[in-house]
Amino acid sequence: MKRTERVSIIVKILSDTPGKIYPLRYFCDLFDMAKSSVSEDIKIANSAMEKAGKGNIETISGARGGVRYIPSVDAKEISNFLEKFCQKLRDPDRILGGNFLYTSDLMFDMEAMNTLASYFAAKFKDAGANYIATVETKGIPLATMVAYQLHLPLIICRREAKVSEGSTLSINYFSGSYDRIQKMSLSKRAVTPNTKALIVDDFMRGGGSTKGISDILAEFNVDVCGTAVAIASALPEKKKISEFTSAVTLYDVDEENKIIKVEPNII
Amino acid sequence: MKRTERVSIIVKILSDTPGKIYPLRYFCDLFDMAKSSVSEDIKIANSAMEKAGKGNIETISGARGGVRYIPSVDAKEISNFLEKFCQKLRDPDRILGGNFLYTSDLMFDMEAMNTLASYFAAKFKDAGANYIATVETKGIPLATMVAYQLHLPLIICRREAKVSEGSTLSINYFSGSYDRIQKMSLSKRAVTPNTKALIVDDFMRGGGSTKGISDILAEFNVDVCGTAVAIASALPEKKKISEFTSAVTLYDVDEENKIIKVEPNII
Repeated sequence: MKRTERVSIIVKILSDTPGKIYPLRYFCDLFDMAKSSVSEDIKIANSAMEKAGKGNIETISGARGGVRYIPSVDAKEISNFLEKFCQKLRDPDRILGGNFLYTSDLMFDMEAMNTLASYFAAKFKDAGANYIATVETKGIPLATMVAYQLHLPLIICRREAKVSEGSTLSINYFSGSYDRIQKMSLSKRAVTPNTKALIVDDFMRGGGSTKGISDILAEFNVDVCGTAVAIASALPEKKKISEFTSAVTLYDVDEENKIIKVEPNII
Repeated sequence: MKRTERVSIIVKILSDTPGKIYPLRYFCDLFDMAKSSVSEDIKIANSAMEKAGKGNIETISGARGGVRYIPSVDAKEISNFLEKFCQKLRDPDRILGGNFLYTSDLMFDMEAMNTLASYFAAKFKDAGANYIATVETKGIPLATMVAYQLHLPLIICRREAKVSEGSTLSINYFSGSYDRIQKMSLSKRAVTPNTKALIVDDFMRGGGSTKGISDILAEFNVDVCGTAVAIASALPEKKKISEFTSAVTLYDVDEENKIIKVEPNII
């Protein structure tokens, strides 16, 4: 096999399993090549990814070392994406009344969610998360893509305790969006204590459900090391959680004049 | 930029957006290269992917033509994967009683779901699906990965009609697993009539919820062009739907002797 083919295959394998560490030997065996050649292949693969603004291939030394792909999107690509995302969000047909917007088509568009996930993955890659946590339902595809890109298992909090979850722990929390007490449950088997989770969700208004996820994780001694949401509402200004990252901010839904004010955040 | 780098970047861009058609001009502009050089690059990229059993790059002629990446996994890789998947499923700690098994850790493992999705994507790539449809919750990560790989939008049927879904259509269906009537709803905005959907779910026993998805889609004149489930129970033999593809078959859960009989299907 020629170098061009080997480098392409290395890029394909590493970027298919972002964050996963492959010992150098894996590629030596795959191509039946010496370590020195494979190292050179990896150097070229890394340089290509960096030149294209597509993240990089990290070399980890030591006994458990190897190489892994760290995804990224360049600032210009994400800016263009978020501008288009906001343009779509400004469509007055999305207005549902009661300050709700229809966003499922965007949240279930995998190319969009993959781009957004690349941004969050790059931002939180060093946060030390052991899990990606979300609550059903609309944020699951985004959380899935972030989990995929960071090579981490997903935790999904359920609204109802299901028999297929085994023993569960449940909490009640106040949802400002729905103006009522809601329930959230998590399987006791879902997490290991003394770990960390990155919360990912599609939308945040007052931060009630994010706080709920954080509270239920705390019951299992799981710390929250970051919160990433696609869309955050500017109001209420005071959220139930202090720190979060949002891709775009929803400033206002003027139902009478059918104007949706939403802007990308500076990244 | 050298050919090796260009080919790697082509592989990265195409395989990041499986199924998406890029006009040749896109790469000519990106690299500032002539069409003939880019065509040669793509030929090499395709040959590398085929040699590695990682799918192929398809050239589509005509005014709307271009190139796109079609994912695949080789038979040996998927066989190995399914054998390991079954080994994990055979762990007696999964037994929850009432014939239920705990499987969330597997269904929320993105590397596993990505591999499984590659298999389903390759199998159903020519089925003519316009959507990937599922019902909340546990099958969503798998459905997300299949939607990502086939470059199709996702449809998620909800258990409850949510205000953020706008007008919804609801149906009742009988779930054999839960031995009761359940409800399923879908937003009227979620689909365009006279289209086709591929159903993806984590588990099938009698096929009740799959039939439910199919019934609700029928209300919108959306035909089902295939059904793919990770795990199908061997019993009941007579399912509510006639055709489906499952990756593994669950033959028996012997709670007394703590033996789970599950086998990969021949692919």
